[in-house]
Amino acid sequence: MTFALDPRLADDTLVVGDLPLSRVLLMNDSRFPWLILVPRRGGLSELHDLSRHERAALIEEAARASEKLKRLTGAAKVNIGALGNMVSQLHVHVVARFEADAAWPGPVWGAGKAAPYSAEAAKAQVRALAAALGLAGA
Amino acid sequence: MTFALDPRLADDTLVVGDLPLSRVLLMNDSRFPWLILVPRRGGLSELHDLSRHERAALIEEAARASEKLKRLTGAAKVNIGALGNMVSQLHVHVVARFEADAAWPGPVWGAGKAAPYSAEAAKAQVRALAAALGLAGA
Repeated sequence: MTFALDPRLADDTLVVGDLPLSRVLLMNDSRFPWLILVPRRGGLSELHDLSRHERAALIEEAARASEKLKRLTGAAKVNIGALGNMVSQLHVHVVARFEADAAWPGPVWGAGKAAPYSAEAAKAQVRALAAALGLAGA
Repeated sequence: MTFALDPRLADDTLVVGDLPLSRVLLMNDSRFPWLILVPRRGGLSELHDLSRHERAALIEEAARASEKLKRLTGAAKVNIGALGNMVSQLHVHVVARFEADAAWPGPVWGAGKAAPYSAEAAKAQVRALAAALGLAGA
């Protein structure tokens, strides 16, 4: 199956760029520095739908995103999650968390309403994240 | 650093057994079939604190737990998460989700109050999970 980004993920995010396996998205919610990694392969829903080789690649990309995001933002903790109750396409959240953020210490999923970035702020955030991840940017 | 299970994780769970890298725990909340994998190494908090080799092992163990838990329970979706806002010791949740469960489609973390297993039910659940994961059991 060929890869096509789920329309709901596309609506909720901005494209940061592509790592070798995953498309990197920025959640359009300025309350949390929040990346989403989507392996660019069709027909994936569960972690166990990937091959062993792809899983190793995915966790490396998630760890890289986690480390860079933490360094860039000075976060207290990074939250990583693959839920998929609403969007079944396999995707991995990598979220920088702060003790003063809008959901701490709870999870970000389902917490209140997203606060979209301004066009300017979105552009700056995408640029900063693409640079941190060594991507050309979107 | 040597491995010691965080006391809060120990209080909230039952031991299922050990995979090569991780201790496998059952969350003592009968609302959700819920495993927790804790890499048995000291001083870990973030995914990027592990070596590449350990990360590959961890994601294989998470995928195995995910697949076996889904098959055993007939879940609609497996949720995987490493949060650590409350317990900083690196641990990975693997949770079987159902469209009729107490938190669907939201996350299980922070959702309502745990409903502990009876002693009998806990024993049966630990035994079934240990068998599914090919562990000797606790």
